[in-house]
Amino acid sequence: MLEKALSYAHARHEHYLARFQELLSIPSVSTDSGYREDVRRCAGWIVEELARIGFDNCRAYETPVHPVVYGEWLKAGSDAPAVLVYAHYDVQPVDPLALWDSPPFTPTIREGNLYARGAIDDKAGVYTNLAAFEALLKTAGRLPVNIKVFFEGEEESGSAGSIPFVADNHELLAADLVVISDGGNLRDQPLVITSTRGIVDFEVAVRGPQRDLHSGLFGGIVENPAHVVGRIIEALHDNEGRIRVPGYYDQLQPLTDAEREIMARQEAIFRSQLEQDAGVPFWGERLGPLVERATALPTLDVNGVWGGYQGEGGKTVIPAEAGFKASTRLAPGQDPEQIVEALRAFIMGFASETARITFTHGPVSCPAALLSEGPVIEAIHQAFEATWGKRALLYRQGGSVPIIGTFKQELGLPITSLGFGDGSNGHSPNEYIILEHFFRNIDTAIHFYCALADKMSAAELER
Amino acid sequence: MLEKALSYAHARHEHYLARFQELLSIPSVSTDSGYREDVRRCAGWIVEELARIGFDNCRAYETPVHPVVYGEWLKAGSDAPAVLVYAHYDVQPVDPLALWDSPPFTPTIREGNLYARGAIDDKAGVYTNLAAFEALLKTAGRLPVNIKVFFEGEEESGSAGSIPFVADNHELLAADLVVISDGGNLRDQPLVITSTRGIVDFEVAVRGPQRDLHSGLFGGIVENPAHVVGRIIEALHDNEGRIRVPGYYDQLQPLTDAEREIMARQEAIFRSQLEQDAGVPFWGERLGPLVERATALPTLDVNGVWGGYQGEGGKTVIPAEAGFKASTRLAPGQDPEQIVEALRAFIMGFASETARITFTHGPVSCPAALLSEGPVIEAIHQAFEATWGKRALLYRQGGSVPIIGTFKQELGLPITSLGFGDGSNGHSPNEYIILEHFFRNIDTAIHFYCALADKMSAAELER
Repeated sequence: MLEKALSYAHARHEHYLARFQELLSIPSVSTDSGYREDVRRCAGWIVEELARIGFDNCRAYETPVHPVVYGEWLKAGSDAPAVLVYAHYDVQPVDPLALWDSPPFTPTIREGNLYARGAIDDKAGVYTNLAAFEALLKTAGRLPVNIKVFFEGEEESGSAGSIPFVADNHELLAADLVVISDGGNLRDQPLVITSTRGIVDFEVAVRGPQRDLHSGLFGGIVENPAHVVGRIIEALHDNEGRIRVPGYYDQLQPLTDAEREIMARQEAIFRSQLEQDAGVPFWGERLGPLVERATALPTLDVNGVWGGYQGEGGKTVIPAEAGFKASTRLAPGQDPEQIVEALRAFIMGFASETARITFTHGPVSCPAALLSEGPVIEAIHQAFEATWGKRALLYRQGGSVPIIGTFKQELGLPITSLGFGDGSNGHSPNEYIILEHFFRNIDTAIHFYCALADKMSAAELER
Repeated sequence: MLEKALSYAHARHEHYLARFQELLSIPSVSTDSGYREDVRRCAGWIVEELARIGFDNCRAYETPVHPVVYGEWLKAGSDAPAVLVYAHYDVQPVDPLALWDSPPFTPTIREGNLYARGAIDDKAGVYTNLAAFEALLKTAGRLPVNIKVFFEGEEESGSAGSIPFVADNHELLAADLVVISDGGNLRDQPLVITSTRGIVDFEVAVRGPQRDLHSGLFGGIVENPAHVVGRIIEALHDNEGRIRVPGYYDQLQPLTDAEREIMARQEAIFRSQLEQDAGVPFWGERLGPLVERATALPTLDVNGVWGGYQGEGGKTVIPAEAGFKASTRLAPGQDPEQIVEALRAFIMGFASETARITFTHGPVSCPAALLSEGPVIEAIHQAFEATWGKRALLYRQGGSVPIIGTFKQELGLPITSLGFGDGSNGHSPNEYIILEHFFRNIDTAIHFYCALADKMSAAELER
């Protein structure tokens, strides 16, 4: 079964690439309502692909926001485990568009990489699984385990529709294990995530005069909202990067010595791979070791700031309004609601009758999650050893997958991660996947599902 | 001469309004190079109008930036004074466009006001003079004084072409007096400006990572340029509004007790008229009396701030770059070059290897100017008394007219102000002129030029 599926996959690189490019060409930006119909079209494309491959009950379930794609193949027998495979088919916005070397939704190959928005985050997760399932079904006529796919269309915008969908569909989504296919490997080092950070986002608007005012007439007598925004942003951190919002670090679950030791061993990899990517020296040493800061401590970043005149030349105005968007990554132990309230109280403390402030909690809110490291990890190691020649590195990741907390809470299942986004520039211009890894990961997925069937029965996975 | 010209003007309100609307419909935004041809077209329109009225040697002189419009009528005899009339035909940008109730370059009358960009600042200055000259020339066949008009096309963008033009054309521009037709009256109170503040503008860019980075991957280990922008903006002022850049107040020329007393008497007018316009309570009491802060103390305002994601929803990035534009109004005594260097040194102090900073001094730079209060003031009082029933209030103004300093320095002439922009929302959406005042000011201008001939000979004006 394994060998035939691998042969099938190897003979069909061109076919896989063409399908993947078709998927990447659909601009499924979930955070911008202008792309609503494209997100829906993307869901439809995946439903058709699932049906073509041989899945049953394939459909796009409507939610109040974007559709959830579901499909199942449950003919592996009751002894085989049932695996709920998660990925997301929505993508980040593309701006600044001017920095893309090729159009973000015209997938383009350059120097062995495939450039497109979503190439790694997370259409690689969606499509690598589909490709593996196709190879297995077209050769063996069956999958080694029972599979339910659950692909959401709003991971990048807070999962406000998908999260209640999970809560309302325990039976449909019942399984023995959840596999999260988001994220990827670090160059030649396979990775498996053992925790994700939580996230909360918010927006602050500071309003002063009723309209932009002439700075010659009103300068010195009207408070400038852009100055208040500067004061708030400055107050959020001390000069070493420590968050100054009262109580921010109070709930942190302390790291164990063992965790600290694993992180220390990962520091060299982080430094060599990520610093080059950033194009700027790392910063923030005073707060703790590098990997700890990047994966286990909370952070608070302004994601966008605006106000007044941004065009060419100058415009001598006092802006009527200025504001910023920010998001904070949460470590295990921090409660998103308590953090939002702490932020709100701190920021509203800058309000006055001359600088009215609005604090809006965005749609994104989830706690950090610790993932299972159960027996499934052995299947992952086996798959990577067979295709990459090395075991996976188990690591905490700094990013957030809001729905993981929901899976844990609603379905009570063990969760593991197996991501296939091997490339760079996620959330940035010129996002790309390394083509060689894209093909290799299809093999990894085939190996993984076969190994999963070999290594464990459904009974073993139950807790 | 006076009466016939006034009768002519009164019978031609419709004609004047139509011409003024034609002038207002040309989008002569000087700060944005996309409007370059429109600025040129506007200059051409005024040249034709001057020639039609009966001026000689009318032409648009090219400069490296935008054209200077010149025209002369010098047949009043050598006993009559020669007056150089200044106004500017360029206008501020229009954004935020969404806040305009009618398109900014489609002049629209609502409730007795004429709405358009430039309706007060400063096409009112340009056209009110033209209308008065037309009335005098069409009735008496002559003007009471010799006139040279000098209308620039880049007052809103720093006069980088006009200033050298003045320096290079002493003979062309030789006169006995300069009348600055910029600014306007305050509701029913005629105003004459006795000083203008200087101005310097600059832009700051903070660059961190080579591209926008995923805040989950890089949060906590890469310094966020938007945070550095917040720190710089916060540092510019203390919480009471005092500028914290070292040395900022060192060169201030102290106010006399007499000046302070005039300002104190103006406080009620400022408060009643301007606070309603601002739509927000005044602020900054700790720094001094209201009128002093608005007209005689330096101010420093952020005019625009940007960085990262500003679209709908969220985008969890650490922006590669953030920045701001700002301008500072200077009081008499402050040297623009020294202030720029003080700002540069202060702001560059925030630079580091993780936050590279660029400080760019914009095109705008001029010192504050004290205007002549010589005998011409009596002609102004007479004109306003005849048309408004009251004498003008002599006051310092908070805004800046960069070219005034150049006139003083290059031509060595006495300068007075006589502005006709009676309305509101200069530099803002929904700029408008009060139509009744627009017509009344044409009378005021006719009275003024006649009074000027009556009251003084060229010899009296010489110093």
